[in-house]
Amino acid sequence: MEYRIKDIKLAPQGRLQIEWAEMHMPLVAKLIRERMVKEKPLQGIKIGAVLHVTKETAALMRTLKMAGARVRLAASNPLSTQDDVAAALVEDGIEVCAWRGMSDEEYNKCIDWVASFEPNIVMDDGGDLHAHLHEKRPEVAEKVWGGTEETTTGVIRLRAMEKQGVLKYPAIAVNNAKTKMMFDNRYGTGQSAIDGVIRATNILIAGKVVVVAGYGWVGRGIAMRAKGMGARRVIVTEVDPLRALEAVMDGYDVMPMIKAAEVGDIFITATGDKAVIRKEHIERMKDGAILANAGHFNVEIWIPDLEALAVSKRKIRPHVTEYKLRDGRRIYLLAEGRLVNLVAAEGHPSEVMDMSFANQALSVEYLVKNRGKLKPALYSVPPEIDSKVAELKLKAMGIEIDKLTPEQKKYLESWQV
Amino acid sequence: MEYRIKDIKLAPQGRLQIEWAEMHMPLVAKLIRERMVKEKPLQGIKIGAVLHVTKETAALMRTLKMAGARVRLAASNPLSTQDDVAAALVEDGIEVCAWRGMSDEEYNKCIDWVASFEPNIVMDDGGDLHAHLHEKRPEVAEKVWGGTEETTTGVIRLRAMEKQGVLKYPAIAVNNAKTKMMFDNRYGTGQSAIDGVIRATNILIAGKVVVVAGYGWVGRGIAMRAKGMGARRVIVTEVDPLRALEAVMDGYDVMPMIKAAEVGDIFITATGDKAVIRKEHIERMKDGAILANAGHFNVEIWIPDLEALAVSKRKIRPHVTEYKLRDGRRIYLLAEGRLVNLVAAEGHPSEVMDMSFANQALSVEYLVKNRGKLKPALYSVPPEIDSKVAELKLKAMGIEIDKLTPEQKKYLESWQV
Amino acid sequence: MEYRIKDIKLAPQGRLQIEWAEMHMPLVAKLIRERMVKEKPLQGIKIGAVLHVTKETAALMRTLKMAGARVRLAASNPLSTQDDVAAALVEDGIEVCAWRGMSDEEYNKCIDWVASFEPNIVMDDGGDLHAHLHEKRPEVAEKVWGGTEETTTGVIRLRAMEKQGVLKYPAIAVNNAKTKMMFDNRYGTGQSAIDGVIRATNILIAGKVVVVAGYGWVGRGIAMRAKGMGARRVIVTEVDPLRALEAVMDGYDVMPMIKAAEVGDIFITATGDKAVIRKEHIERMKDGAILANAGHFNVEIWIPDLEALAVSKRKIRPHVTEYKLRDGRRIYLLAEGRLVNLVAAEGHPSEVMDMSFANQALSVEYLVKNRGKLKPALYSVPPEIDSKVAELKLKAMGIEIDKLTPEQKKYLESWQV
Amino acid sequence: MEYRIKDIKLAPQGRLQIEWAEMHMPLVAKLIRERMVKEKPLQGIKIGAVLHVTKETAALMRTLKMAGARVRLAASNPLSTQDDVAAALVEDGIEVCAWRGMSDEEYNKCIDWVASFEPNIVMDDGGDLHAHLHEKRPEVAEKVWGGTEETTTGVIRLRAMEKQGVLKYPAIAVNNAKTKMMFDNRYGTGQSAIDGVIRATNILIAGKVVVVAGYGWVGRGIAMRAKGMGARRVIVTEVDPLRALEAVMDGYDVMPMIKAAEVGDIFITATGDKAVIRKEHIERMKDGAILANAGHFNVEIWIPDLEALAVSKRKIRPHVTEYKLRDGRRIYLLAEGRLVNLVAAEGHPSEVMDMSFANQALSVEYLVKNRGKLKPALYSVPPEIDSKVAELKLKAMGIEIDKLTPEQKKYLESWQV
Repeated sequence: MEYRIKDIKLAPQGRLQIEWAEMHMPLVAKLIRERMVKEKPLQGIKIGAVLHVTKETAALMRTLKMAGARVRLAASNPLSTQDDVAAALVEDGIEVCAWRGMSDEEYNKCIDWVASFEPNIVMDDGGDLHAHLHEKRPEVAEKVWGGTEETTTGVIRLRAMEKQGVLKYPAIAVNNAKTKMMFDNRYGTGQSAIDGVIRATNILIAGKVVVVAGYGWVGRGIAMRAKGMGARRVIVTEVDPLRALEAVMDGYDVMPMIKAAEVGDIFITATGDKAVIRKEHIERMKDGAILANAGHFNVEIWIPDLEALAVSKRKIRPHVTEYKLRDGRRIYLLAEGRLVNLVAAEGHPSEVMDMSFANQALSVEYLVKNRGKLKPALYSVPPEIDSKVAELKLKAMGIEIDKLTPEQKKYLESWQV
Repeated sequence: MEYRIKDIKLAPQGRLQIEWAEMHMPLVAKLIRERMVKEKPLQGIKIGAVLHVTKETAALMRTLKMAGARVRLAASNPLSTQDDVAAALVEDGIEVCAWRGMSDEEYNKCIDWVASFEPNIVMDDGGDLHAHLHEKRPEVAEKVWGGTEETTTGVIRLRAMEKQGVLKYPAIAVNNAKTKMMFDNRYGTGQSAIDGVIRATNILIAGKVVVVAGYGWVGRGIAMRAKGMGARRVIVTEVDPLRALEAVMDGYDVMPMIKAAEVGDIFITATGDKAVIRKEHIERMKDGAILANAGHFNVEIWIPDLEALAVSKRKIRPHVTEYKLRDGRRIYLLAEGRLVNLVAAEGHPSEVMDMSFANQALSVEYLVKNRGKLKPALYSVPPEIDSKVAELKLKAMGIEIDKLTPEQKKYLESWQV
Repeated sequence: MEYRIKDIKLAPQGRLQIEWAEMHMPLVAKLIRERMVKEKPLQGIKIGAVLHVTKETAALMRTLKMAGARVRLAASNPLSTQDDVAAALVEDGIEVCAWRGMSDEEYNKCIDWVASFEPNIVMDDGGDLHAHLHEKRPEVAEKVWGGTEETTTGVIRLRAMEKQGVLKYPAIAVNNAKTKMMFDNRYGTGQSAIDGVIRATNILIAGKVVVVAGYGWVGRGIAMRAKGMGARRVIVTEVDPLRALEAVMDGYDVMPMIKAAEVGDIFITATGDKAVIRKEHIERMKDGAILANAGHFNVEIWIPDLEALAVSKRKIRPHVTEYKLRDGRRIYLLAEGRLVNLVAAEGHPSEVMDMSFANQALSVEYLVKNRGKLKPALYSVPPEIDSKVAELKLKAMGIEIDKLTPEQKKYLESWQV
Repeated sequence: MEYRIKDIKLAPQGRLQIEWAEMHMPLVAKLIRERMVKEKPLQGIKIGAVLHVTKETAALMRTLKMAGARVRLAASNPLSTQDDVAAALVEDGIEVCAWRGMSDEEYNKCIDWVASFEPNIVMDDGGDLHAHLHEKRPEVAEKVWGGTEETTTGVIRLRAMEKQGVLKYPAIAVNNAKTKMMFDNRYGTGQSAIDGVIRATNILIAGKVVVVAGYGWVGRGIAMRAKGMGARRVIVTEVDPLRALEAVMDGYDVMPMIKAAEVGDIFITATGDKAVIRKEHIERMKDGAILANAGHFNVEIWIPDLEALAVSKRKIRPHVTEYKLRDGRRIYLLAEGRLVNLVAAEGHPSEVMDMSFANQALSVEYLVKNRGKLKPALYSVPPEIDSKVAELKLKAMGIEIDKLTPEQKKYLESWQV
């Protein structure tokens, strides 16, 4: 068995972490696992995965292995590996190439090591494995039965390959599953972004004016939770009139950032665009304004403008940088404008990853079952998997739903042309 | 000028009603009207409409006329005409054939009278005009430039015609516009269904257990408002696991009706299905349970079961029927199981109809502009109209939104493959 | 048996009304009644009551009678009597002197007729009976064992008598019971004021800016419900900094009326003060602003200012008066500035009156039990009655609470000095 | 200048901390400070304080010093001192005797050192200084002009002294100020308890069943925030029927703990009583149940019962202890049953301490101004101070309130008897 990790002796600590995660991942670590242990749907299948090596990923890897697969795992980011978890995985017989603080070269070597495994199924988070296979290991890519992709970025890269006609295997965009987006963005980031702001600053949300830039799923989640924590006013900024109107009807104030800038105490960006908060806005802000970002890239708060406006800058708390403006006003940037929920808090709760990874596990099984039947193309998660994940989640929560009677089914069908 | 209405002397009272509606319909009665009065985009166009003759419809008809059109209007339901409004419309030079309490024969005659107008554009609510034109007046239908349809039912009928290849003109399904559904179903019915329950019963919502059957747009609106009025517990019943899970994450309890039946104080159905509340549920309900329906047809609460279980029945308040069961328990049915917001309250607020009718007005203009360019088929409201309606609504509310800078636009486009 | 009512033949209709009320008054019409029917704590006691003759009062009167009392009832307002209910009460053996539309002279005669009954216990709503007894029938007042008072106004009058040393019997201020105020003001008026605005106008609350003047119990209830119905912004105006701060922390905007006037769509006053909305505010309002009052007297919206500013005035809907200002703006006053929940809706739900009247019934029993032990003075409802009412209400709702163990009791007591 | 602290070189880091706190303490560190710097109301006054030596206390001490006072400060808990803050205070000329991890003997010595200062005014948090003065330094206590007390515990001790007739100076119970309780308990602990649970566990609140024991101010705050973070059901347990009923009317489920135990995912106690969660409850809990305490003492969750039921126990995350029961179920205790918001999160936000300490500062000024006029007794914070604090807080937030006109004042007075 091959592996390269920081220190195998960290395994006991990693095991505790995985246990805690699995406790809150009843789909991946219980319902799906128990079935797969019995059915062994992945017996002998080689899976190559490039994912964040975290306690939640560990739960997924362990389930795939218990389903019969041989699994090789590399890190999808040089900085995100939990070394103790990596150690525990190795003890569990999963080959891992990942440690926190690896160099770019080491990072790429690990990916190539996964490719060299000649996997039947590939799993990726960001598209680096997919790209590597197509560019550096085309002979391996040819033989891959299918792949999955966890993120928007990866999906965009796969779509480009598909468009150019070079995609060599069917790939499933787990990212777009309803049961992923619903949890990840609205409820997961909604909670963890507010959590990140509180951990970074320890301020009281009650009584504050919170400005949320963007009313997509993430923005909705944040607005909802900001109100829920007692913000006296939640202001949404939007560029799309339909979303803006929905925000209004959901009970929020809507105005352009240029006006919101003057009244906000806390600003959280979640637009997917750049420079959402920039010079003209910063100039109008109140002394003490707090800026945080919950969007993927650290471009939503335009830091060059902040730097240009500031006469001095210092770190006042671990994740709080103070920028002092010419007129004495102080602006506080959290987490250097990077994802506040990841940097200042712990990122998504395990429950959220459970939904996402349940889609992963079932998509892998689907690709195995449908080997040879799917053309190389980008696919959505099959609706029956999406629905199954919801069903399992409800089951795990002990929640029953209603069933249609035969008469009701007939009635509904009579409406369909 | 032809017309047939109850009494032209009712016009002054109708005028007051229309004024009140127009006050709350800033899109149809102000922003769109003012532009159309200037541009006259419907100059000389003949419009034949079969719609509920209400104060809100009046606002729409008046705008179309001010835009240059010649308008002929018949009732889309024998019972829904507001006679005073009809009178005011006639005074305004709109030809109307509608009075409350018309017979089926008279109803059909009025529709034929609209058809005989040989309209360029037709507007319908339920599909009776579309069907009449295709079945009884094919020579007129041939010459129609295009039509609109307000309701789900009408859209289903048009889709059937399209599928059978008999549809003779392009038709726009106004029903599916986001700016209609969002208002109509979620916010409109959400408020008015609760309003209907309160008017019918005068009970206190605070402290009650409210059961909402169905978590579509209507169910969401009702659940949200029931919680907002202080229900101590809102229980949602669903057959779809994804919707059920969303309800759970939105903060509601989910369980099958058979269990909800035992704890609910107030039940409101909004599923689109039949027999959602039936024998087995009624048998388990508490003494005093209140049943109301907010779905389109009065089949969601299965009245035959209620009748069969009851040993006596009487009307205890105008919209409340008491069914006494064998064991003495009393079940209260509101509005005879018909739409509680229409029967026991006033139906949709004018603001809601404004959104819907703004889509109508702009869709009519679109059909005129694109005369001859659209094949006979069923179309969605063009997204730019949907978006325009949202934009106008925000403007009417005095709400500004943000604008993308050129750099932001470029950045977003760089993400699109 | 003596009585003077409109028409005894209305009794069947009145009986239905009473049944509906009693269905939602489980304390007065079930739990307390059942015990009193057994124990007959009021056997032979003469009760003289001056109350609004409504279906809820009927439930209370019937319970007192079933408890053994002889009851004589007069109207506490010439306009509030439900004639059918009065008829049903007479059929039930309760002496009534009340009909809708009685003259002031007739009104006073009925009160004197109650006094002439030489009641042991008196119950009043507004203080007219207490005043009449002390001023016109001192010889009867001397012999009264005790009385109750339902309203703030009545309590103020009694307090004045107490202060002047003229009060002749112990009187209990039911008005101040926690279980009355909590329901009446916060939840009862909260719901019914919003209900009144919707019934009067049929406007959509979602997306509106609602201004609530005053953050006492009533204002709190209205603010909570306005937000719950989807208002995009609820603004509270206050003169007391503590209350203002609490409103802010509860998630509302706070500003002076002079600023709120410019942004509000709907204004609801609940301050207990006069001229809360006056010239300077009206001058700044938006076209279409809606004004409603939920305070006791119709002085909160200063109508003389509205009249002075208007160039014309007309009734546009049953409870909506339009005032047109010089510059064309239109201001809409609901219910002529009187209590919008009483005039435009049905007033308090029966559940609310149940709490209040449970306090009444138990206070009457308390006065009988403690005959001769209480000095002539104004008393609060004994805390054990207040607590009992809460306990019974929970029981009626099927809700259990926790019990202290002996160890817990001891622990808590160890903290008390 | 005397002092005893850990290390004066920690001052720069302490200064940053104090700056951050003062940024969010606009009352103590800005509005009140600026006035006191001008007026010097404490010129030459000796203040002896025994308080938690935190960044917020530092803000208060600095203000008192700038007001002219000579300040001596000791720690009110051997474990709560922030050593860097202590160092910064010494640099600012405040005498401090405090370091984290002092022994009990050292703790008492520091208190005596404060007493030996012969302070004019004393400030205490817990009552140790008051007790020490009365028991060990009566000659000093005799000369004290007055004192303040921050906590419930301290107030109970002072009340006992007052009752026994031994209290030697007037003492103000800052703890009972409305502007303290409102912030501290409802909003402060409400937010920070939920924050503590999330930091300790990183679980998703959305979709969970949260059980809150006790519906006092703390319980209200926690219930409100749990709902606000998306709990699908918030269950309140109570022993007092009035509070239980209020919880029901506020939209929560109420039931005895014995039933809640079976359905809860997360339990948070806030009753002030002991053994609120005990054997009989733990036996019924679901696998994975999480227990946290937000009450003052770690007796609400009865740990002996948990220990007795468990077959094994281990720490699975820093603030999470897993107890495994005989049947395999796992129960997770947070922060060893101690205050979850203090142990697992950062305790009260600075904004909350600002309100409390504004009451402290103004109470000290009041005691100085009223020197000799107040008998030795326990006093509430004067209502005008409470109101002033609210007024200043609103000012600091940029919020204006309304003012009564002379006519309105007269009208209100006419109602007062």
